[in-house]
Amino acid sequence: MDHKGRLKSLQAGFDRNSLDALLVTHLPNIRYLCGFTGTSGILAIHQTGSVFFTDGRYSEQARTEVQGAQVVIARKPPLAAAAEWLAKNRNKVGKKLRRLGIESEHLTVAARSQLSSHLRSDFRLRETQGLVERARMVKDADEIALLRSAAVFGASLFDRALEVIRPGVTENEVAAEMEYAARRGGAEQMSFPTIIAAGKRSALPHGRASAVAIPSRGFVVCDFGVILTGYCSDRTRTVHVGRPTSEARRVYEAVREAQAAAIEVVKPGVSVSDVDRAARNILKQRGLGRHFTHSTGHGVGLEIHEPPRIASGQKELLCPGMVITIEPGVYIAGSGGVRIEDMVVVKQGGCEVLAPTNKELITI
Amino acid sequence: MDHKGRLKSLQAGFDRNSLDALLVTHLPNIRYLCGFTGTSGILAIHQTGSVFFTDGRYSEQARTEVQGAQVVIARKPPLAAAAEWLAKNRNKVGKKLRRLGIESEHLTVAARSQLSSHLRSDFRLRETQGLVERARMVKDADEIALLRSAAVFGASLFDRALEVIRPGVTENEVAAEMEYAARRGGAEQMSFPTIIAAGKRSALPHGRASAVAIPSRGFVVCDFGVILTGYCSDRTRTVHVGRPTSEARRVYEAVREAQAAAIEVVKPGVSVSDVDRAARNILKQRGLGRHFTHSTGHGVGLEIHEPPRIASGQKELLCPGMVITIEPGVYIAGSGGVRIEDMVVVKQGGCEVLAPTNKELITI
Repeated sequence: MDHKGRLKSLQAGFDRNSLDALLVTHLPNIRYLCGFTGTSGILAIHQTGSVFFTDGRYSEQARTEVQGAQVVIARKPPLAAAAEWLAKNRNKVGKKLRRLGIESEHLTVAARSQLSSHLRSDFRLRETQGLVERARMVKDADEIALLRSAAVFGASLFDRALEVIRPGVTENEVAAEMEYAARRGGAEQMSFPTIIAAGKRSALPHGRASAVAIPSRGFVVCDFGVILTGYCSDRTRTVHVGRPTSEARRVYEAVREAQAAAIEVVKPGVSVSDVDRAARNILKQRGLGRHFTHSTGHGVGLEIHEPPRIASGQKELLCPGMVITIEPGVYIAGSGGVRIEDMVVVKQGGCEVLAPTNKELITI
Repeated sequence: MDHKGRLKSLQAGFDRNSLDALLVTHLPNIRYLCGFTGTSGILAIHQTGSVFFTDGRYSEQARTEVQGAQVVIARKPPLAAAAEWLAKNRNKVGKKLRRLGIESEHLTVAARSQLSSHLRSDFRLRETQGLVERARMVKDADEIALLRSAAVFGASLFDRALEVIRPGVTENEVAAEMEYAARRGGAEQMSFPTIIAAGKRSALPHGRASAVAIPSRGFVVCDFGVILTGYCSDRTRTVHVGRPTSEARRVYEAVREAQAAAIEVVKPGVSVSDVDRAARNILKQRGLGRHFTHSTGHGVGLEIHEPPRIASGQKELLCPGMVITIEPGVYIAGSGGVRIEDMVVVKQGGCEVLAPTNKELITI
């Protein structure tokens, strides 16, 4: 991972963002910038370098993992240690350090107050939004390789689900088998609580696996992902237990077409709202538009949900290296639902679906 | 669960805290106060009632779960919806609503800015800290029953670990078997990433299970917990693979005694720092004090780490109904470590260990 390059490119944007330094407190951003994977630390990036602060529990780990930043093992909490260091060194890190950026979407009000009280009054805190997230939207080759591995391994869990899903088995049991296979295959953890939503519950877009048994007839939505070497996978497949009605087939085919239509338009320069519209138009044409109640997708990487949002009203343009999900769905309350989701990498002239499969309706 | 009583008791403290209303944004606090278990929502508590705001994805769930509060399904984000509602209704909810409490340890700087811009200037935001957490420290009978169930079920996973732990098996495989048993037994999820730390890795207090194989000789620290009906369990057992040296036995016995000594002093009215000291003194007497590098325990409930912290310098006094962990440990870099942890409920005159067992050293 090119941690040094990432730090440098952030520093190069300081002038544009009216910053002399940036205090990075969001752990996935810290991991992205310097490689630290623990759960306590703060990264201070100034004009001439970077300093990572953590506590004694992580001394060994920080020294092994952190790249491109000086490591300080502090006796006080990392935020206080970082503030003290900045106050003491503000004349030694390029031009006088005055404007200190904070990650306003991650720092709490209480932490901001603490920070202010630790800093001398000659600092000015500037609220930044999404500075690191913006850089993270475009994945480099190393990251794409890890996301591909996660996607391929994540996809394999569906094979296990197909062996288990049958009437009478609980949703929890299906999830248990998938998660067990994930762990045994080396996943660090699931990237989000596994969704297994059967029968009428398939109409819940967020139907976490429950103690409910799979009925003898109906859809089963399986939405699942792993974290492998820090990177997340995200995938949804919907199967039908028992013989599908013609209406169930029609709904499934509409979602399948909507997903294919959205994937078809993904390429550099296209607006994310156009991708959303491509899926939505198909479902509208089939009279199902009002049952597609969420956005079409999201970025995925070190976090399961990252920018960009693939949704109407969003202005972001796709770039090569973005990795996004395409996941239209239809949810009919009291009846059932269907969602189909893949991860795609935006590439010159189009996109690559990660771990592609035939998506014809599977009946069990 | 007595959600209405909890809301009332919080309202009763408004005057003392100079509040006319409180905006609750931390999801475990929301769950505690009104029962909502989803992942998007805000609870506004005013002088004469409470209003819960969520979005369309959770309309069915909110109507089923929320107790003691009016439910508003908003088209805009919950924070904006809550702000708008408060601005519109500030003259209708008891005496004129002016002082609005925010949870400063949970609300981000960006969310606070959004809130300010939504509210009319005649509101004053007051930064509160731990108002709901303070109430949550003392568990009622319903909560203790759920924590007991979680603790008993969580404890059973160690039986599975004992069947699996042997030289050559990876830490990840042990964790996989425990997590699989948890899921099949009905756990919603693990309450934190399972720690299986074998051999030299047992000297890492936060040694998440890894791809490393268990060596032929050494300690294996197993720290694990489940979430069952929303409540967390937390437990650590340390076993020894191969024949322990006399020094390994001595270290294990010291930790076992330290834990017993701390449990012995737990009763209402005792300071949490005295509990910490009881464990620490034993380890100091054995010459192991400097290897006990963390605090003795923490509260546990809807979250895995809650107040109070059982640590030196903390002033909290124990009360009946608190549920805390007692978990001293010794970590010797390059060699290995031992930790023993139980959950205890503070009761009149003493405490009850949840899922108690014999803790003599198990060798495998």
